[in-house]
Amino acid sequence: MKNYKITVSYDGTRYKGWQIQTNTDATIQGKLSMVLENFSGHPVDVIGSGRTDAGVHALGQVANFHLEGVFKKNEILEYLNRYLPGDIAVTDISEVDDRFHSRYNALRKTYRYRIRTNPVSDVFERRFLYHYGMPLDVDKMEEAAHLLTGTHDFASFCGNKHMKKSTVRTIYEISFQKNKDEFTIFYTGNGFLQGMVRILTGTLIEIGNGKRDIKSIPILFQEKNRALAGFTAPPQGLRLERVVYAE
Amino acid sequence: MKNYKITVSYDGTRYKGWQIQTNTDATIQGKLSMVLENFSGHPVDVIGSGRTDAGVHALGQVANFHLEGVFKKNEILEYLNRYLPGDIAVTDISEVDDRFHSRYNALRKTYRYRIRTNPVSDVFERRFLYHYGMPLDVDKMEEAAHLLTGTHDFASFCGNKHMKKSTVRTIYEISFQKNKDEFTIFYTGNGFLQGMVRILTGTLIEIGNGKRDIKSIPILFQEKNRALAGFTAPPQGLRLERVVYAE
Repeated sequence: MKNYKITVSYDGTRYKGWQIQTNTDATIQGKLSMVLENFSGHPVDVIGSGRTDAGVHALGQVANFHLEGVFKKNEILEYLNRYLPGDIAVTDISEVDDRFHSRYNALRKTYRYRIRTNPVSDVFERRFLYHYGMPLDVDKMEEAAHLLTGTHDFASFCGNKHMKKSTVRTIYEISFQKNKDEFTIFYTGNGFLQGMVRILTGTLIEIGNGKRDIKSIPILFQEKNRALAGFTAPPQGLRLERVVYAE
Repeated sequence: MKNYKITVSYDGTRYKGWQIQTNTDATIQGKLSMVLENFSGHPVDVIGSGRTDAGVHALGQVANFHLEGVFKKNEILEYLNRYLPGDIAVTDISEVDDRFHSRYNALRKTYRYRIRTNPVSDVFERRFLYHYGMPLDVDKMEEAAHLLTGTHDFASFCGNKHMKKSTVRTIYEISFQKNKDEFTIFYTGNGFLQGMVRILTGTLIEIGNGKRDIKSIPILFQEKNRALAGFTAPPQGLRLERVVYAE
């Protein structure tokens, strides 16, 4: 059994997210498992660095899996890209230590969230951004983002009501890239709760449009109440950019 | 009656092209006419600078139409963008001389054709390029492109078998933009026959992959036979970039 680590890009538009469900056809993990099973002739458990929700995209999702038999890594890569649908692509593969686990060993992740403020649709990018269509006070959003960075209990930003484990996470950086008609928020942290990036984004948007005061941020950390945070920004604006591991 | 000129962007993926057909829902012209009819309360004839085929995109298609009544141009623009689907956007509007006709008055047009040579799919751009997936000799294609520029009878590059009018056109420039994993060909001319840019591209690809000799180009102009030219490159790689008019 050899352990392989892959980097995966996907347009999540038509999928029910990363994680396998009863209908394997509807998830990225399901598609990968199916193709790898056909390749190897045995069931393959594809371990992702984490789930992405329905409709969320990835530029550099990371996953690993074990295969019996001796294969060249390029042979696996080419097979995957030949049989995966056009909206999923494996961009890198490497053989890794048997103990490597893409979820447990992830040190940090970066997500990006794209928001279009111009009222006119960008017809070519519309599937990969949230068309908000109105101006936002991005400076104020940056100020609020500063309060969100650091180690906090993000329970108010957790989309899973039944979360039993710790909701403490560390956000290392939230940065903004501003363009004429749109802007992008980059979130880097040691891990993110379910729906967390989208709820953080929804909360920042409410600050940017004046519906929420920046002073509400410390209260959200104290109260640990999802109902007090902002709306869940739509999935199509979100993309998992990269996952970083120790050397 | 006032005459309005608009610039239109569209993702042509789900349309049967620009030109109106029995089912207005399936064409860009049909969608525009329908929305303008609802806006003005009278039938509106939307005149495009030219047709684009099924699946072909536009960044800057130009059209004009006449409306009865007095409207602010921004009022029309906002109405259009509110009621058009997300894959069609009107990016500019101006009031023009009553005699302005977007087809007759067009001086030149630029199309671009994007080809991806990297075998791995670009999941985010795949709807807007031709995923060829193999290397091409782009230098040789540029050399051939040089022979295609100028004023010629492009009958061999005409997709319409029943073309009765002149097939003489002038291509002012064919330029290449080369990137690591893909390249784009820009075609600027005084007009293009049906399917012409895609047949030119298919012919250039056959030169780039070594299946066709560059010496075949002058013969194509002599023979005026569609069967001798290259294949019709797929529609999704093509985009109408801009249409230029006299001041």
